[in-house]
Amino acid sequence: MSRTAPRTEPAGTPLGDAFHVYDTTLRDGAQREGISYSVADKLAVARHLDALGVGYIEGGWPGALPKDTEFFARAAAGELQLRHAALVAFGSTRRAGLTADRDPQVRALLDSQAPVVTLVAKSDRRHIERALRTDVAENCAMVSDTVSFLRGEGRRVFLDAEHFFDGYRFDPDTALRVLEAAVTAGADVAVLCDTNGGMLPLGIAEVVAEVAGRTGFRLGIHCQDDTGCAVGNSVAAVQAGATHVQCTANGYGERAGNADLFAVVGNLVTKLDMPLLPEGAFAELTRISHALAEIANIAPDTHQAYVGASAFAHKAGLHASAIKVDPELYNHMDPAVVGNGQRVLVTEMAGRASVELKGAELGLDLAGRPEVVSEVVQTVKEREAQGWSFEAADASLELIMRSALGDGSQAAPPFTLESYRVIIEHRADGVVVAEATVKVLVDGVRMIATQEGNGPVNALDAALRAALTPSRPWLEKVELSDFKVRILTPGGAAEHPEGHGTDAVTRVLVESTDHGGAWTTVGVHGNVVEASWLALVDALAYAALRRTGPHAAA
Amino acid sequence: MSRTAPRTEPAGTPLGDAFHVYDTTLRDGAQREGISYSVADKLAVARHLDALGVGYIEGGWPGALPKDTEFFARAAAGELQLRHAALVAFGSTRRAGLTADRDPQVRALLDSQAPVVTLVAKSDRRHIERALRTDVAENCAMVSDTVSFLRGEGRRVFLDAEHFFDGYRFDPDTALRVLEAAVTAGADVAVLCDTNGGMLPLGIAEVVAEVAGRTGFRLGIHCQDDTGCAVGNSVAAVQAGATHVQCTANGYGERAGNADLFAVVGNLVTKLDMPLLPEGAFAELTRISHALAEIANIAPDTHQAYVGASAFAHKAGLHASAIKVDPELYNHMDPAVVGNGQRVLVTEMAGRASVELKGAELGLDLAGRPEVVSEVVQTVKEREAQGWSFEAADASLELIMRSALGDGSQAAPPFTLESYRVIIEHRADGVVVAEATVKVLVDGVRMIATQEGNGPVNALDAALRAALTPSRPWLEKVELSDFKVRILTPGGAAEHPEGHGTDAVTRVLVESTDHGGAWTTVGVHGNVVEASWLALVDALAYAALRRTGPHAAA
Repeated sequence: MSRTAPRTEPAGTPLGDAFHVYDTTLRDGAQREGISYSVADKLAVARHLDALGVGYIEGGWPGALPKDTEFFARAAAGELQLRHAALVAFGSTRRAGLTADRDPQVRALLDSQAPVVTLVAKSDRRHIERALRTDVAENCAMVSDTVSFLRGEGRRVFLDAEHFFDGYRFDPDTALRVLEAAVTAGADVAVLCDTNGGMLPLGIAEVVAEVAGRTGFRLGIHCQDDTGCAVGNSVAAVQAGATHVQCTANGYGERAGNADLFAVVGNLVTKLDMPLLPEGAFAELTRISHALAEIANIAPDTHQAYVGASAFAHKAGLHASAIKVDPELYNHMDPAVVGNGQRVLVTEMAGRASVELKGAELGLDLAGRPEVVSEVVQTVKEREAQGWSFEAADASLELIMRSALGDGSQAAPPFTLESYRVIIEHRADGVVVAEATVKVLVDGVRMIATQEGNGPVNALDAALRAALTPSRPWLEKVELSDFKVRILTPGGAAEHPEGHGTDAVTRVLVESTDHGGAWTTVGVHGNVVEASWLALVDALAYAALRRTGPHAAA
Repeated sequence: MSRTAPRTEPAGTPLGDAFHVYDTTLRDGAQREGISYSVADKLAVARHLDALGVGYIEGGWPGALPKDTEFFARAAAGELQLRHAALVAFGSTRRAGLTADRDPQVRALLDSQAPVVTLVAKSDRRHIERALRTDVAENCAMVSDTVSFLRGEGRRVFLDAEHFFDGYRFDPDTALRVLEAAVTAGADVAVLCDTNGGMLPLGIAEVVAEVAGRTGFRLGIHCQDDTGCAVGNSVAAVQAGATHVQCTANGYGERAGNADLFAVVGNLVTKLDMPLLPEGAFAELTRISHALAEIANIAPDTHQAYVGASAFAHKAGLHASAIKVDPELYNHMDPAVVGNGQRVLVTEMAGRASVELKGAELGLDLAGRPEVVSEVVQTVKEREAQGWSFEAADASLELIMRSALGDGSQAAPPFTLESYRVIIEHRADGVVVAEATVKVLVDGVRMIATQEGNGPVNALDAALRAALTPSRPWLEKVELSDFKVRILTPGGAAEHPEGHGTDAVTRVLVESTDHGGAWTTVGVHGNVVEASWLALVDALAYAALRRTGPHAAA
């Protein structure tokens, strides 16, 4: 069928075929609202998953979706070289009244050249009767015929028993008959699917243990997250005897999503001591999670277990000082193990210890410079009392630290402001326009630039860039990628319990990117435009630092 | 201590004191990176939680954080009237070497006037010795002294046993001695905390059952989400015997967060048939989740279990067509039960039923006016596609409904705009000024007014009032009391971080008060000033409606 013997078992993982980490990001994950993978995206996702060392990559449903058919064709033509994973095609059993070899959908599974096929079959009698409009005997025949046919063609076969848990509760005999039809015909794994996602961990563990005891079959688990328990359910199933776990990257999937691959693998490896991944791959968990979010064009979940940017971020001063003494007391594990890092959030609750830890995190050694730490703590406290917040604005905090360290020139913006003016008009014809003029000194030269924008900050940003890019052409690569606004009561709520309306203080967070990395800066002022300006200025100062200073190599 | 007997048990819930839904959004939830509640925010959060019917609202740590001290003071002064929940103050036990009555932190707990106190205590011997630098006996004395003192002062006391699961694994006797010290001294609940969040559901269930068996104490559970299992862990603990569950709204919390209140309650109510909430409150789950996200200024998680906008959204063609035949086969529950809706297409969000229900809530009878309902649904859908959101802007929604009902004159603002202009200048002397000019027709008279403000919206608000107050002196009583800004990707997809910088769509929520009540209006535009203008105009139209229309009596 293909030139070299296609792999049907995981390669290079300590447990080999004894345990399957089975990824269905490219099929079930693609059901998530907002995801639309191109074929090139799918190939890139598969390469990342293979680098992580999952055992199986379910590439899609050939014959049902043209993009999936093409994905398998391009993979078979050599565009996808897998080092660890076996490629899987997903599809349904033959239709009622057709033989398997004549069913075009089954044919498409063969044509995909995938060495492994996962067949989905109904195992809930209500679905068999009401959705499929057939009976249990014919449903089981559809399963066993299709499995036999594919086995005869040299394929390894797994069975996804759809709606298994609901079906088992409603009519256990039917549910078990479907598994038996598949395994007797040669399927290697019977995957119990919580398709509607309504299960809880203890219930999952009970059913998996019971089915394992009654059948002796090799069992897999596939959980949806409708109760917020997909990860817990998957792990509980493994503890109850499942040796094949289906997940998606970052939990992408229909409705509330699927079990998150990274959390499931993180738990099995660190909590249950199962060596699932190839040597060195576990430390790639965070990077690969973020890369797959990038391909899906979904902002990474900052609070995701194990891999989120905040997963090891500590805010409470109480904890921060104790962490310095003994980090292992305040994290469930060492974040470096999954390629993540501990972060200390410098906030009103924080003290010297957090500033030192933060400095070390940013590569600045403040440990031997108590006077610098004092100055930074003082500046941070003063600014936070005015409404500044540095916990999400590392770049602004680094500029403060560098300035306190005497790196003043590096921390300064690449220009001096003389003045700016922004005009917003709602004209009599109903059109709304924004226009900004900036007057700045750049390398001693006075530059005046005027630009329009669809809002005051957009116009100001455009005008500032127009003034700077003649001498700083690299600024064209720097873009604002996010912009957040928060209105605050001045001086803390205590002083103004009432009436903090339009005369309140505004905090603006600006995220910038130069396509090599991203950084966040902050500005605070009573005027939202001036607050935005301050954050923009920090953003450009930091961009210059990235280009010429200590970040240049990064 | 306070004038009326303060509530120490949940009121109006079917299970009463037999089961505690305990919310710690205002304390542990506030540890989430990016959350910074004002005192007014905290009061608003508490009111929403009370409306949902949680049994306990942990308001903060009085004495440790000035904002929390003020929150309790304002609550005690009558600003927080709770119908269902009891208010809880959180704090630590007395310090080593001080008596409880002399410890200022313990005093602050009393001074808060909260009827219930949750004390946090260390239960892991390593933390007692390495972080607290004391021994187990003194740690237990600190616990029992503080509990006894607070009980003697008439407080109900719960104990949060910090790092319990890690501690119990390391040295079970020490962990149990700490619980015993608390319960013997009068604490009603011993809450087992997975502070570092490293547990899995089966392990949690095993320990909870074992501790319940060994002690006979009433147990609570508090889970962090570092394994992605906080919800599953919390539910497993309840199944193993815990009768008090600590959660935060939307799972807000430090690092990966806490157990999500809405998922935990959703699971306990729908999967374990526990009637936890007051009559009718369960259908408010989705609305309250989104309102609390709004207050936290965090975009709601569209894929959150039960309450996410996508939680019942089906994309798979296979499912979508089958759902039409038999919806119950493809959802784990009826989404309406939690006030959510099933969605097959992205635009099918606002339903007729919800508009009718909302109308009834606002005192408008739309049941017999199908054409009015259609018009409102159409308007809401169109606006929501552009980024408007009426979930937190009842006043704007009421204006749309009244307009559709033919109450056009009542729903219109008390003027016609010709044009406005706002100028923001950062002058060469460093002073930042904002100035606005409005030209409006009021009762057929053309009025031109210019005012300064400390920001563009403040200046615009001042100028508009200057033009209107000569003929509408009652406007002087109307004030903006809050102002929130959110940047959105055009088309409403909060998930695409690419390129939604300063050129994104801005949504502004304005809260106004006339000291007889408060109302919220919304405006959306690419330009933040125009978005604010739209919300201001609605705010004044609604103010007029309150004065002359059906709200005049309210």
